[in-house]
Amino acid sequence: MSGIVTTGEKRLVLASGRAHPVLAQEVSQELGVEVLPMDAWDFANGEIYVRYGESVRGSDAFVLQSHPAPINTWVMEHLIMIDALKRASAKRITAISPSFPYARQDKKHRGREPISARLMADLYETAGIDRMMSVDLHAPQVQGYFSQPVDHLMALPILADYVSRKYGSEDIAVVSPDAGRIRVAEQWAKRLGGVNLAFIHKSRDPKRPNQAVAKRVIGDISGKTCILVDDMIDTAGTIVQAVEALTKNGASSVVIATTHPILSDPAAQRLRDSGVREVVCTNTLPIPEEKQFEELTQLSIAPLIARAIRAVFDDGSVTSLFDGEV
Amino acid sequence: MSGIVTTGEKRLVLASGRAHPVLAQEVSQELGVEVLPMDAWDFANGEIYVRYGESVRGSDAFVLQSHPAPINTWVMEHLIMIDALKRASAKRITAISPSFPYARQDKKHRGREPISARLMADLYETAGIDRMMSVDLHAPQVQGYFSQPVDHLMALPILADYVSRKYGSEDIAVVSPDAGRIRVAEQWAKRLGGVNLAFIHKSRDPKRPNQAVAKRVIGDISGKTCILVDDMIDTAGTIVQAVEALTKNGASSVVIATTHPILSDPAAQRLRDSGVREVVCTNTLPIPEEKQFEELTQLSIAPLIARAIRAVFDDGSVTSLFDGEV
Amino acid sequence: MSGIVTTGEKRLVLASGRAHPVLAQEVSQELGVEVLPMDAWDFANGEIYVRYGESVRGSDAFVLQSHPAPINTWVMEHLIMIDALKRASAKRITAISPSFPYARQDKKHRGREPISARLMADLYETAGIDRMMSVDLHAPQVQGYFSQPVDHLMALPILADYVSRKYGSEDIAVVSPDAGRIRVAEQWAKRLGGVNLAFIHKSRDPKRPNQAVAKRVIGDISGKTCILVDDMIDTAGTIVQAVEALTKNGASSVVIATTHPILSDPAAQRLRDSGVREVVCTNTLPIPEEKQFEELTQLSIAPLIARAIRAVFDDGSVTSLFDGEV
Amino acid sequence: MSGIVTTGEKRLVLASGRAHPVLAQEVSQELGVEVLPMDAWDFANGEIYVRYGESVRGSDAFVLQSHPAPINTWVMEHLIMIDALKRASAKRITAISPSFPYARQDKKHRGREPISARLMADLYETAGIDRMMSVDLHAPQVQGYFSQPVDHLMALPILADYVSRKYGSEDIAVVSPDAGRIRVAEQWAKRLGGVNLAFIHKSRDPKRPNQAVAKRVIGDISGKTCILVDDMIDTAGTIVQAVEALTKNGASSVVIATTHPILSDPAAQRLRDSGVREVVCTNTLPIPEEKQFEELTQLSIAPLIARAIRAVFDDGSVTSLFDGEV
Amino acid sequence: MSGIVTTGEKRLVLASGRAHPVLAQEVSQELGVEVLPMDAWDFANGEIYVRYGESVRGSDAFVLQSHPAPINTWVMEHLIMIDALKRASAKRITAISPSFPYARQDKKHRGREPISARLMADLYETAGIDRMMSVDLHAPQVQGYFSQPVDHLMALPILADYVSRKYGSEDIAVVSPDAGRIRVAEQWAKRLGGVNLAFIHKSRDPKRPNQAVAKRVIGDISGKTCILVDDMIDTAGTIVQAVEALTKNGASSVVIATTHPILSDPAAQRLRDSGVREVVCTNTLPIPEEKQFEELTQLSIAPLIARAIRAVFDDGSVTSLFDGEV
Amino acid sequence: MSGIVTTGEKRLVLASGRAHPVLAQEVSQELGVEVLPMDAWDFANGEIYVRYGESVRGSDAFVLQSHPAPINTWVMEHLIMIDALKRASAKRITAISPSFPYARQDKKHRGREPISARLMADLYETAGIDRMMSVDLHAPQVQGYFSQPVDHLMALPILADYVSRKYGSEDIAVVSPDAGRIRVAEQWAKRLGGVNLAFIHKSRDPKRPNQAVAKRVIGDISGKTCILVDDMIDTAGTIVQAVEALTKNGASSVVIATTHPILSDPAAQRLRDSGVREVVCTNTLPIPEEKQFEELTQLSIAPLIARAIRAVFDDGSVTSLFDGEV
Repeated sequence: MSGIVTTGEKRLVLASGRAHPVLAQEVSQELGVEVLPMDAWDFANGEIYVRYGESVRGSDAFVLQSHPAPINTWVMEHLIMIDALKRASAKRITAISPSFPYARQDKKHRGREPISARLMADLYETAGIDRMMSVDLHAPQVQGYFSQPVDHLMALPILADYVSRKYGSEDIAVVSPDAGRIRVAEQWAKRLGGVNLAFIHKSRDPKRPNQAVAKRVIGDISGKTCILVDDMIDTAGTIVQAVEALTKNGASSVVIATTHPILSDPAAQRLRDSGVREVVCTNTLPIPEEKQFEELTQLSIAPLIARAIRAVFDDGSVTSLFDGEV
Repeated sequence: MSGIVTTGEKRLVLASGRAHPVLAQEVSQELGVEVLPMDAWDFANGEIYVRYGESVRGSDAFVLQSHPAPINTWVMEHLIMIDALKRASAKRITAISPSFPYARQDKKHRGREPISARLMADLYETAGIDRMMSVDLHAPQVQGYFSQPVDHLMALPILADYVSRKYGSEDIAVVSPDAGRIRVAEQWAKRLGGVNLAFIHKSRDPKRPNQAVAKRVIGDISGKTCILVDDMIDTAGTIVQAVEALTKNGASSVVIATTHPILSDPAAQRLRDSGVREVVCTNTLPIPEEKQFEELTQLSIAPLIARAIRAVFDDGSVTSLFDGEV
Repeated sequence: MSGIVTTGEKRLVLASGRAHPVLAQEVSQELGVEVLPMDAWDFANGEIYVRYGESVRGSDAFVLQSHPAPINTWVMEHLIMIDALKRASAKRITAISPSFPYARQDKKHRGREPISARLMADLYETAGIDRMMSVDLHAPQVQGYFSQPVDHLMALPILADYVSRKYGSEDIAVVSPDAGRIRVAEQWAKRLGGVNLAFIHKSRDPKRPNQAVAKRVIGDISGKTCILVDDMIDTAGTIVQAVEALTKNGASSVVIATTHPILSDPAAQRLRDSGVREVVCTNTLPIPEEKQFEELTQLSIAPLIARAIRAVFDDGSVTSLFDGEV
Repeated sequence: MSGIVTTGEKRLVLASGRAHPVLAQEVSQELGVEVLPMDAWDFANGEIYVRYGESVRGSDAFVLQSHPAPINTWVMEHLIMIDALKRASAKRITAISPSFPYARQDKKHRGREPISARLMADLYETAGIDRMMSVDLHAPQVQGYFSQPVDHLMALPILADYVSRKYGSEDIAVVSPDAGRIRVAEQWAKRLGGVNLAFIHKSRDPKRPNQAVAKRVIGDISGKTCILVDDMIDTAGTIVQAVEALTKNGASSVVIATTHPILSDPAAQRLRDSGVREVVCTNTLPIPEEKQFEELTQLSIAPLIARAIRAVFDDGSVTSLFDGEV
Repeated sequence: MSGIVTTGEKRLVLASGRAHPVLAQEVSQELGVEVLPMDAWDFANGEIYVRYGESVRGSDAFVLQSHPAPINTWVMEHLIMIDALKRASAKRITAISPSFPYARQDKKHRGREPISARLMADLYETAGIDRMMSVDLHAPQVQGYFSQPVDHLMALPILADYVSRKYGSEDIAVVSPDAGRIRVAEQWAKRLGGVNLAFIHKSRDPKRPNQAVAKRVIGDISGKTCILVDDMIDTAGTIVQAVEALTKNGASSVVIATTHPILSDPAAQRLRDSGVREVVCTNTLPIPEEKQFEELTQLSIAPLIARAIRAVFDDGSVTSLFDGEV
Repeated sequence: MSGIVTTGEKRLVLASGRAHPVLAQEVSQELGVEVLPMDAWDFANGEIYVRYGESVRGSDAFVLQSHPAPINTWVMEHLIMIDALKRASAKRITAISPSFPYARQDKKHRGREPISARLMADLYETAGIDRMMSVDLHAPQVQGYFSQPVDHLMALPILADYVSRKYGSEDIAVVSPDAGRIRVAEQWAKRLGGVNLAFIHKSRDPKRPNQAVAKRVIGDISGKTCILVDDMIDTAGTIVQAVEALTKNGASSVVIATTHPILSDPAAQRLRDSGVREVVCTNTLPIPEEKQFEELTQLSIAPLIARAIRAVFDDGSVTSLFDGEV
């Protein structure tokens, strides 16, 4: 039979956008592979130019980008990097968006709105990805916006184990800041060994319609160390009101745990002023120097991402790692 | 300039599958248009044959199918009907699935599961639809599973107005059977004029780990007429436990309101035995004779669907009608 | 050059739907590979849930489903299984539909009909297959309904060799039950060593227009063992009339050979009553206990499918195995 | 509400490739619309250039091309014309291929062959058509190669009515040249009023294996005017052998009727020499002067195509016209 | 025949992003249609939210966005607006990008680069456009990056007519700043009545390899009013060197004419300092107050865009308007 | 874990169309792999049939076709060969079109024209390619017509090194035949060691409008050996006029270098009569015996293509080889 036959090889490469170089470095070290060299700069009108410094032909390419502000710039850089990988004949392209862009616009809340999260999924597929990897999607239904496989990682074990080590000896209650996030709080409570569960209920007293919305704490938190959990903190308005409600209702202290620290202004100031004991988050998003404060602890998501990349590359069984029980 | 020029016309046709002919008749009468004649039968192995009895060339076709058991048969009939419309040169095809099939499998709960709701969206788009119309999707994110427009109708006004007329003079509380549905209950409470809101909290007492899950009622329902709301009732296990919890906690009576009466066995028996005062639902799904019972009231969704069809045909502004505030 | 380099591996997995577990077991044994563990059940309204019991990441997955009644259920299960494989990152997915669903609706016989066989091909491609494998398609043009490779297996050697071993010493004629299937009968005749060929001609006597259709036997079958061949037997009406015509015209005995034993009622009864000497078929479709009868012989298609799977996995040359001369 | 509102109009335009200008002229006259002016020429290496002479914006465009030799040139011109219509903003594009190119390569006869008829369908869809119109497809399954609507016209009424007027008073038999085309012959026999049916059976005498294939006439044709029907005549080898067989078996005369007169050499010579009384065909393909002969009658397909175009433009019911009962 | 029949209508709506509201207002006034009301704001991390203030169902929607810095933000807003139009059932969506984003990255200059202009085309098509309208694309080949129609408008008549009115009585030469743009300069020279043509040739003197690149003026410009033409001015480095070369070579004065005034810093300062007599441009891009200077004249492109929109809406013949002779 | 695991292999196969068998043989020898055996013939009406002579399952297939006249035939054969590879389960398909068909129709020069080069790209992608390889595309933007990777090879080193070896000791100037090709001439000049650069400027004297277009030589070529470079020579009209202008302006001799020798009549005659010293080209296109002449030198492109194929197969870094600095 005609032809040339050789044994197949596969090569993992790790590329990274410019939004969060520290995270890329950490993932690179965990994996034991250099970040792919890349030239990248902006034209004066904002157009982005990228070019890889070495061949990616036939590679199993993982391209990591974080999505802090200015988010549209980083999304576009991600898409352009994917296009360049595709046209340079990478064999398989997995985009890694630790904090998925536009995750909150995941439905038409009202008529004549876009569904921007689906649009993002389509833009990624159009640019040329074969798979997506993300951490703690705002709604797990976003997985279904892709026609391709999504590796949905969970930060909960990282965050909860830290909390457990540090506060495990105290009397703990897990608290959700609103009714829509109770399922996540349940997973926390379970992981922390069946501790108390509570949440904040936002209600308008029907008998006093002119009064503002009240924040009621449902569940027993009196005298306890409250672990207030949410997937992201943006301007911190809601979460800080939750801290206040917990404090007023007799919590001995409040610790906030969140995956994505968006921390748009005035979040840092609000949190600092709230009397919270600690804010634990991951580094799916970078936190600039000026927004850091004493009570803020940022845990690295890099080991989780690195293990997931390796598992995808090796075709190992990684469901326990990835999909959790959300 | 060469060519033949004429003024354009458009023609609305209404086709219907065999799953729920009564609903199709009602929509037909509301619209003032006959259901498109169609031959449809099953081969002995279950293969479905359909053929339209008159031309649909250039038409604005609306093709309605309900999705009770055996749901796969009705989905396939729907797809085949859409294929036949497409190949017969219908100009635009809007599928109407009042109760969207596989809506509950809208994410990977665990690894190695399908996302069947997205698959359904893809199957419809592949068969040839231009738009989808549905009522009260289990998760509104399912809109984003389509790359095409989705008209998302709400049954709440129909159900709530009925409840208001009948029970409006009593002391009412709206109750959600679990924490995940509170947002819908809030809309009910608002529509009923700012009545009390409550919900059932499923919890495991951390101090008695061996005991079963407790159903606690959060909110003030004592002495009230409780309107227990949910998007669908399948085997009625959860909802009947909620009725019991409400009764035990002093509700004066319980009325259930739901959009999609799946009523899989033993739902009808359970509901009958539960002491519920009334079960109000729509006819997005047919309820066979043997599952009907005295306390069951089925309100027609046909006027809503007919108005939506007409609005789509006329290109009118219909956001108030369609999208609500979910 | 940056990156991690390893040698590639590939892993064959065999998944199976619930329509015909015996066939899956046989293929599994032939291949020497366990069927992939899978949870699968039906909700009361017919919705199907599936989940694989172990990782399929990076695998070369073959997913087998048979398509007896209720056919729409089994098609949908097949599609859902494919979606789950895709989302679990199988590298390549080959669907195996031994008896292709809706194969007979392969054209618009009249206006305003669907082309359901093409729709099925589209549904499979949408769900995520990379290739299709099937046995004895009703029309070979159905291969062209796929934009992806189709492995078209032929049962003829299995059936013909059995017939040859058992009846080879008798005076044989191969008979087609109607004019549209003569090409297949020719292949049989050739394989059996150039035996006589005949077929049944359905005609309306122009001189007696009021009389029913006559079944005339074209070709010399008098005193011979007639092998009546067809691709499928559904209700057995046509084939039993052919048996009668052959018997009336002096056949010494009649043996029926077919690939797909649909055997919709009252096929079993009709065949039993027809005086046929033997009905030979394959097990592309299961035959329930109550439809089996003494003269029925079911040969396993599993060795053929297993060899084809292995050849696809090994990238061997398999044209002789697959495509025959249809 | 903002916006400018006007009543819609639609405009039919008819474009034509250069393969068969006479047919385009005839269709143009039947429709009462000029053929769209177009510049078209060939570069020396065969590259084709086209440009329309007036605007086609928003038009309902029908683009006709015949497919004689050199067929690849005419296919490519057709595709390029479609691309130009699409980029010039035609609203809807219907390609008309009276004799569908590569219709005979509609399956893999053996392994490692293309399915060129499906490829053609894909090329047309890629270039930008919204619908296809063709006459007497070699296999009706080719309709299913398109995901878009196909208007499948039938030449039978045109041919059969001509034959009926001219030979209706004689004793007629309809004859199929081989077993694969009997269904078409049946339609002819029915249309001609229930006349006799016969066909030519190609067989190898099992008792004389060394002898050539015999052509046997099945059915009563002795003393009759035989109407020998086929969808196309290419080199005329098979059909002329059929004429000989009929003559030898006592036919009083033979008339050939066919839709597509490919007439590749030496077809014209063979037919002329065969003693056939008349060859009736349509002008789906042009017949160059040098291939015409006295017994050849070419009937225009233009009225049928023109009626179909008008019906498509008007969205009328045209199933009776189009789909026949194939 | 069943169905409801009405005459068709069509409605033009004009939507606009936030990048250049003045241009939108001008187009709106030219067209005589209000800009569609729209809510649009940015979240703190840069995510954009949009919602239309009235129905766009069934409309022929034109959605205009300019692309100055920060260009990625405006591209994303454009895409999100298109998604919202699509999901709100607009019938046809034409995106208008007067200065096409990333137009300069239209090929791989070197390996491992993206082709960002094609990516932009794909992003627009994915978001849901039916057509694109743009002015003076950097390379006309970008039209071919779309599979949909592109209306390619030319600013030359606007610019050239202004120049002709103002400088027509002087002795004019048209000059291209480099060899790659001479074809455009030729069109200018033709439009201005066959005036002299010249261009700047960048060369390295082979005899003095250590010296810098020289700018030589090819063509006769001595004592003439030089009209220096280019499609865009970004940082103005090249164009200002051209002004210098012309001045040095005896031009009596230099006037710059360009379509797209990107004017990234330090363009305004450079131009001001260059001694140029006038810089004429269009308003495809906004020029902020601080970058304006006395010699800068911005002509409105709005009348051209408005006429093109109206022509597209009316399906008129607009080739003369659109495509010019590039 | 269930499944069969083996190490992966990959196999390179080289297929070739019939347009230029000599080139295929040369590439085959360079690579050390036989050309895949294939049956290919034409039906009398021009339809092409192909079938591969051995299995290509799982192979990394490279399918080479040259595109001389009759170009549409060779394009179609290429597409059909790709379809056959796809349906025979080749794992990856790279089409090689050394001279890309319809490369000159890469934009709408005027309204209502096609963009045939984009159409070609779409046809190839539809037929089933995974990648494209070509040499010296007329416009590098054509790379962007593909959504898949394009390996863009450059013939410049082959041609320039030949010229350098033969004429390097003379006083050389590189000349572009028109203004649009100067960038390529610059690359030549650089490669030849910084020699003089010149080009022919086509201009109409504004003072003598009735006179014909003049060909002016820009740059110093007096007494030099002029290397006149272009990507293709079709009818040779322009290039021969350039030879005349150079000769008239004092060139000592003229050598033409081009990649694609289309040489449509009367190119060979014109070149022969022009007094050109040598015409150097590659064999991306075959030159029939009767068009060859003494001064014509054809260099083989096969080593370049073979190295590129091997690099693609081996996933090596090949940017230096492929993309040059165009």
